Amino acid sequence: MRVGLLGCGIVGTKLVGLINERGPTIEAGSGLRLELAAIAVRSSSKDRGLDLDDSMLTTDAEALVTDPSIDVIVEVIGGIEPARSLILAALKSGKPVITANKELLANVGAELYEAAAANGVDLLFEAAAAGAVPIVRPLRESLLGEDVRRVMGIVNGTTNYILTRMADDGVSYADALSEAQRLGYAERDPTADVGGFDAGAKAAIMASIAFGAQVVAGDVYHEGIGAITQGDIEFARQFSYTIKLLAIAELQDVADGEGSEIGVRVYPAMVPNDHPLASVRGSFNAVFVEGQACGELMFYGQGAGGLPTASAVLGDLVDASLNLRRHTFHPVPSGPRARIRSIDALESAYYIGLTVEDNPGVMSAVAGVLATHDISIKTMQQQEAVPNEDGDQARVALITHTALERDMQATLVDLRRLDDVCDVNSVLRVIGS
Amino acid sequence: MRVGLLGCGIVGTKLVGLINERGPTIEAGSGLRLELAAIAVRSSSKDRGLDLDDSMLTTDAEALVTDPSIDVIVEVIGGIEPARSLILAALKSGKPVITANKELLANVGAELYEAAAANGVDLLFEAAAAGAVPIVRPLRESLLGEDVRRVMGIVNGTTNYILTRMADDGVSYADALSEAQRLGYAERDPTADVGGFDAGAKAAIMASIAFGAQVVAGDVYHEGIGAITQGDIEFARQFSYTIKLLAIAELQDVADGEGSEIGVRVYPAMVPNDHPLASVRGSFNAVFVEGQACGELMFYGQGAGGLPTASAVLGDLVDASLNLRRHTFHPVPSGPRARIRSIDALESAYYIGLTVEDNPGVMSAVAGVLATHDISIKTMQQQEAVPNEDGDQARVALITHTALERDMQATLVDLRRLDDVCDVNSVLRVIGS
Repeated sequence: MRVGLLGCGIVGTKLVGLINERGPTIEAGSGLRLELAAIAVRSSSKDRGLDLDDSMLTTDAEALVTDPSIDVIVEVIGGIEPARSLILAALKSGKPVITANKELLANVGAELYEAAAANGVDLLFEAAAAGAVPIVRPLRESLLGEDVRRVMGIVNGTTNYILTRMADDGVSYADALSEAQRLGYAERDPTADVGGFDAGAKAAIMASIAFGAQVVAGDVYHEGIGAITQGDIEFARQFSYTIKLLAIAELQDVADGEGSEIGVRVYPAMVPNDHPLASVRGSFNAVFVEGQACGELMFYGQGAGGLPTASAVLGDLVDASLNLRRHTFHPVPSGPRARIRSIDALESAYYIGLTVEDNPGVMSAVAGVLATHDISIKTMQQQEAVPNEDGDQARVALITHTALERDMQATLVDLRRLDDVCDVNSVLRVIGS
Repeated sequence: MRVGLLGCGIVGTKLVGLINERGPTIEAGSGLRLELAAIAVRSSSKDRGLDLDDSMLTTDAEALVTDPSIDVIVEVIGGIEPARSLILAALKSGKPVITANKELLANVGAELYEAAAANGVDLLFEAAAAGAVPIVRPLRESLLGEDVRRVMGIVNGTTNYILTRMADDGVSYADALSEAQRLGYAERDPTADVGGFDAGAKAAIMASIAFGAQVVAGDVYHEGIGAITQGDIEFARQFSYTIKLLAIAELQDVADGEGSEIGVRVYPAMVPNDHPLASVRGSFNAVFVEGQACGELMFYGQGAGGLPTASAVLGDLVDASLNLRRHTFHPVPSGPRARIRSIDALESAYYIGLTVEDNPGVMSAVAGVLATHDISIKTMQQQEAVPNEDGDQARVALITHTALERDMQATLVDLRRLDDVCDVNSVLRVIGS
């Protein structure tokens, strides 16, 4: 099986090493001989620390994907173009494609899935959903007969590393971020990670597989972790919660209607400490799946890193090669465009952190605002007043029962209008046990 | 696709319900129409609470498995015979088989796997390894290219429920067991669960898939949880460990030799609290997989229960039916008989709990015995003396660094011979972080 590789960055380099190292075992086990035939790169002169025949490198990716001597294509370039055109060309010439490109799939996945199905070859992408965590295959195959209701995951290692450092070691957000950048966990421009964009793309991909409907990155509501403070973390600890950045996709029944809608969003949330996701620490990822018959499942592992990602790509590569030999292919996500439920119409419990004047009536005023919006309070707490130049100020923190997002937004407007409320510092969703 | 069901107990009944309920969605998604054709039962007059055509029930299982109008067989009878003969007959007549029968696969799996491969049809058994936790498919497919080094799991829900109750609520072993029996988590004769036999069968199945060599139930060393006391649990808590019954299978390099051996055993062990397995509570199961490239993975879910198990069976049923339509099948575990490394030659860290006379030299005497066997001590602690009729007795607890099992056994013999050692109360392995 002659493999053409598009791109040779960190994942590509590790994959070349794994193919060489694991090749004999794979051949012994399955009779499948993986041979690296060509690598398309931008510059053929760069030293990648690989012992490669120079003739294997090419800058002509277009020629590689249609080369009839190549059987299967691995794309690890990233980004939309030229990855999209190259993958389409490869599929059209009957070659299975393995990709780790979440941005591509979350934006133009449907076009690629259709091309794969039309040409009867595999388009596999285990590494695009949660890195080395095997979630695509179980959702596609093990849960084929399952009525999956919700998929909820920690799918970004950078933000989970930052939140773990903040919670375990009392480090500030800014310091934890700098440290993550120094260790290579975070990019110089960390927006894609800390702003929830990366997790949003993964949420769209997982929702498409789990619910059999097209969900794109633009459908995903997202908030980042930049506003989380040590105060929030302290409050969470006190009430046995851990703050995690969650990607959530769930099936929502439509009242008085047919079918269902999908609610899909990324935001930092308070997770109860006895929930399995609360113990996922450092740069690890995990995806929690709830189904009507299977109950609760969780898949845990390394969300990023060259070697773990290359391992997931290699699994797909062997799978696609075996399928090619048997003239078969795995089904791709299909179905109509999803009906997305707007964030305003989603329900959650909430944590609210406020700075208030230390006046006797303030708790009653705050509780009154929630009551006018029919939101009931589960826990409410006033912390010791801290004198400052504007007089004595106190922190009030509360957790509500389930409420509609639009009611909560209206409540926050009214809370900010209260004379005794100086600031609404934090608003976080709270996950049930 | 006409389905023949062998057995209609708890899992079978739930499966019948799921096929009816999920059938339309499966057909819409894959074009596959699952139709329950016949159910072989021991007594056709028993009321199963199912709305079934009486003509569907038969007591002639032999006729069912060779009936040419039936396409695929699900076996949920359990036990070795008649399940073995029926499955062999079904495979020989070209029917894929789905089974949840761990006892069967852990004892005579190789014969069945061979028959499946020889007849070119599927033998799928996701529900036999860790209930609803999808572990067989990821090991077989996602990790095809992976160098898996170790598989370590909590694969028995009954014992995990008992240990969780003992740790969280201070309940004694005997009370937790009675409670588990009352709730239907434990059988009236709980030996298979609490003695580690059930977990041993699952360890054999997982080892066979992970390492490509035949491992049978008899290869698995096992200890149960019956000797665990509140004292052990208290010591574990103090040193940030949680006691779990673990099934462990790992690849062991052979010194100065070719190839490798497999170490496979079930025993209660101290798991560090920051290890993902430590947070697996109640009747949940989880399997932790370590590979050279993928790093650490964990798969978590319901290990037992009619509906979750039926969900895993249904996933296999859809998968096998699609494969049958495409004239293909999944590879089964194969390979030679495994070379098993004896428990004596395996290494671990150990926790030892002793009752000693409260004499000044006792700690030094105990430490001296370990030193003669070249076992180094990581932590050692003497608890307050408790006066009793034989004089003052104290509890000594210690954790060692890694040692060979045979050295530890020799050490225990010598410890028991010490005048000041009244009893060796507990010996538990300790898992590294």
